[in-house]
Amino acid sequence: MDRVFKLPSTTFIGEKEKALPLREILNRLEQAYCNNIGIEFMFINSLEQCNWIRQRMEPPNVTKMNADQKRLILARLTRSAGFENFLAKKWSSEKRFGLEGCEILIPAMKQVIDVSTKLGVESIIMGMPHRGRLNVLANVCRKPLHQLFTQFAGLEAEDDGSGDVKYHLGTYIERLNRVTNKNIRLAVCANPSHLEAVDPVVQGKTRAEQFYRGDNEGKKVMSILLHGDAAFAGQGVVFETMHLSDLPAYTTHGTIHIVANNQIGFTTDPRHSRSSAYCTDVARVVNAPIFHVNGDNPEAVMHVCNVAAEWRATFHKDVVIDIVSYRRNGHNEVDEPMFTQPLMYQKIRNTKPVLEIYSDQLIREGVVTADEVKDVRDKYEKICEDAYNQAKQETHIKYKDWLDSPWSGFFEGKDPLKMSPTGVVEETLVHIGKRFSSPPPNAAEFEIHKGLLRILKSRMEMVEKRTVDWALAEAMAFGSLLKEGIHVRLSGEDVERGTFSHRHHVLHHQKVCSVSRWDTR
Amino acid sequence: MDRVFKLPSTTFIGEKEKALPLREILNRLEQAYCNNIGIEFMFINSLEQCNWIRQRMEPPNVTKMNADQKRLILARLTRSAGFENFLAKKWSSEKRFGLEGCEILIPAMKQVIDVSTKLGVESIIMGMPHRGRLNVLANVCRKPLHQLFTQFAGLEAEDDGSGDVKYHLGTYIERLNRVTNKNIRLAVCANPSHLEAVDPVVQGKTRAEQFYRGDNEGKKVMSILLHGDAAFAGQGVVFETMHLSDLPAYTTHGTIHIVANNQIGFTTDPRHSRSSAYCTDVARVVNAPIFHVNGDNPEAVMHVCNVAAEWRATFHKDVVIDIVSYRRNGHNEVDEPMFTQPLMYQKIRNTKPVLEIYSDQLIREGVVTADEVKDVRDKYEKICEDAYNQAKQETHIKYKDWLDSPWSGFFEGKDPLKMSPTGVVEETLVHIGKRFSSPPPNAAEFEIHKGLLRILKSRMEMVEKRTVDWALAEAMAFGSLLKEGIHVRLSGEDVERGTFSHRHHVLHHQKVCSVSRWDTR
Repeated sequence: MDRVFKLPSTTFIGEKEKALPLREILNRLEQAYCNNIGIEFMFINSLEQCNWIRQRMEPPNVTKMNADQKRLILARLTRSAGFENFLAKKWSSEKRFGLEGCEILIPAMKQVIDVSTKLGVESIIMGMPHRGRLNVLANVCRKPLHQLFTQFAGLEAEDDGSGDVKYHLGTYIERLNRVTNKNIRLAVCANPSHLEAVDPVVQGKTRAEQFYRGDNEGKKVMSILLHGDAAFAGQGVVFETMHLSDLPAYTTHGTIHIVANNQIGFTTDPRHSRSSAYCTDVARVVNAPIFHVNGDNPEAVMHVCNVAAEWRATFHKDVVIDIVSYRRNGHNEVDEPMFTQPLMYQKIRNTKPVLEIYSDQLIREGVVTADEVKDVRDKYEKICEDAYNQAKQETHIKYKDWLDSPWSGFFEGKDPLKMSPTGVVEETLVHIGKRFSSPPPNAAEFEIHKGLLRILKSRMEMVEKRTVDWALAEAMAFGSLLKEGIHVRLSGEDVERGTFSHRHHVLHHQKVCSVSRWDTR
Repeated sequence: MDRVFKLPSTTFIGEKEKALPLREILNRLEQAYCNNIGIEFMFINSLEQCNWIRQRMEPPNVTKMNADQKRLILARLTRSAGFENFLAKKWSSEKRFGLEGCEILIPAMKQVIDVSTKLGVESIIMGMPHRGRLNVLANVCRKPLHQLFTQFAGLEAEDDGSGDVKYHLGTYIERLNRVTNKNIRLAVCANPSHLEAVDPVVQGKTRAEQFYRGDNEGKKVMSILLHGDAAFAGQGVVFETMHLSDLPAYTTHGTIHIVANNQIGFTTDPRHSRSSAYCTDVARVVNAPIFHVNGDNPEAVMHVCNVAAEWRATFHKDVVIDIVSYRRNGHNEVDEPMFTQPLMYQKIRNTKPVLEIYSDQLIREGVVTADEVKDVRDKYEKICEDAYNQAKQETHIKYKDWLDSPWSGFFEGKDPLKMSPTGVVEETLVHIGKRFSSPPPNAAEFEIHKGLLRILKSRMEMVEKRTVDWALAEAMAFGSLLKEGIHVRLSGEDVERGTFSHRHHVLHHQKVCSVSRWDTR
């Protein structure tokens, strides 16, 4: 064990050392890979990307934080835990799908947002299930607390729209990120009880925002998807969304997935809900790196968040953070987990909350005093109490406080229930029809299929006779929108030609491989 | 390159050799891994299983077949190609979703079935999309050809039921497998246009048949799922079904997946339909070995089929055969692929059909003569022609010819549209209610949660007062079925307790880890 070995160039466990005793080599590798963080990345077919990860995970003490960073984590963790405690105290018999056991999720999300913002991101679209949702709205999005609390009061709405249970609602907020001193837009999409159904919605919204900002590389707009462990492994839509991640016409240039892994699905154990070792195995399909991290070790979690956010900004590919934690209560707060998992919940009851673990650690390290810890807690409780009193003054809720986009100017001066006239003059339709029925003007250079020439010809005849079939009507609709400067996006397989060969909006040169503009991103 | 190296114990490229020159080592490894077969298996966390695969893929000439085997492949390939040719000749403008380009699928399926049957399987449940379906019915299941041909005649049905397009229909057949001389039952489940929707149906049917036969290890009943490449990578239900594969209460003890990979999805190229290298990457999630094989090399395909069937019989886990081939025509026979993929289809037109490739090979090898090849073809055409004439005599189709189970005895002597009385006497209900409301009799040994004792007590009061709530009514329904000897299976997460904590059909000892009987298989 004391024999000294030269370090190969594929490892980063040495700082300035070129050789180490075997004992120390093993020790450093165990620190990097067998301690609070487990990494799956060796399936990635890129030496550059694998080395990039090694470089960020292997050096000794790489997860070390300074005192300021530690105090920030503690402050955020205090808010995360304090929020749930406050709700539990005020509305003890209400379902809220609290975060207890995975309180580190809030500091983790904030870390991801901080780093991404520093690296240029200005807008973040988020999707998530109900667990911890209110906490995310309050402490990540800084949704005004009194607005949240009014949701517990059962008030009537004062505006038009339709509501949902409080842990399904979305939000949109624009605010100054005080760490980066930059303005940032945060949106959480509304979602139903159907877990993971929001995933493609978030990606669509992200893609749309990237399009309208001209953000072709996803440097300014990004998405974060939160998942529960059981749903991440159980829902087909997760797999489908993963397969959109690198398609030229659908990519959002890298999503950061965060799993709040409480090692249970309602009452079902992992061994009865999935056929693979990890809840994150779906991400292996698209070769996304997967970081498993102990949720009770806040600094390890923050390090992983740093690396994931940097990964996304560097390679613009998906990445997964699996926060291995637990669920202190039942599936919701009125649920008894001892009915079905007595031994697991016996253990959980004997486990210290992460806020206590981390407070004790920082006191021990001399970073904070016990009084400071108490002070931070009391201050946040006071904030909650003030908002609680403010909420009591409210007489109505407002649905528009819960939209995931500002929609400003969208309905202004218009009756949203009344359709504006959309007709166009015949001349315009004829113009569109003729353009749509003509072969490409550069016929000499562009060899079109003969069958298509026939189709185009018969279309032209229709236009001239003023008769219209489905395909022509559809094309006129698209064409008239485009003429008005409105973006038209057809989405799905086979849309270029149309499933029934009726569309043909993309023509293929019969001798030249057509690389669409999506391929060249 | 001529230096001799000792072969390590992890390789099987040597026969009796213990050492080989580097040149020969490279040559043999290239033969095994870089020729007609590509294997993904190094993610499997079992040295035994990895070695098992190496042992079957690495030895020199391991894919070699003898003359009898070659003639059998040729005969089956002739039928596969001949069937499509015959349909194309007789009904040239009808959609049939033919197998042209992947004709090897039929010999491949028959090989899998032969080997599995030899290894003890007596019943095989299959699910598949429309591509090649009629061919599978005809040449794998030996569905009478005239029954198939009547589907092209647009006849009325003479029995009750509802029909569907011909390439959606199922079948059930029991027949002697002449290769193994054993009786075998084959079923193809009906399926809709929704690709892959049939996957969990097939698994459920397989599991049910295993249950009723007492086949707890899946030695007698198995499933084969066929997939198109685009759907296998695109449909979430594939991922969901994969995750059922090793769940104690859902496993069918290994499914053989066969992908008829024609490298296109209707008109969509792989680069626009998935975000990973292979269409089979979903199988990596559950660590199933994946065999990619050149569909134009029949012997390589047969070797892979042998290994896959043996794998399933040995380890009872899923395995994937990816037959890399092409689609000679459009998505269906009235479709023009040159509209959207001109260069690809130019190449395909210049590619010899696999039957020609293989006939030429066997003639060159002296295994068959050109006359024999022609003779086999003519004989099968005669069979088709006879069936065609027989079909012309038919005046009606029969829906019952297209059921995927015999259902014999099920409706006999009963009006299927009239419900039999299902009531039970009050005494029985009270008996069931009391049993369901009593704690386990061995209270001293079995510590039940106190909250549950209260629930059981209030149930007992309901029974005594003759009032019934949802939970009690449900329990009485299950109980009365069980009392009549009818199997009751509740399926889904959380069913043991019920999502609304209303059921509690499984009680958990508060101090002992409960291993359900599903865990002990």
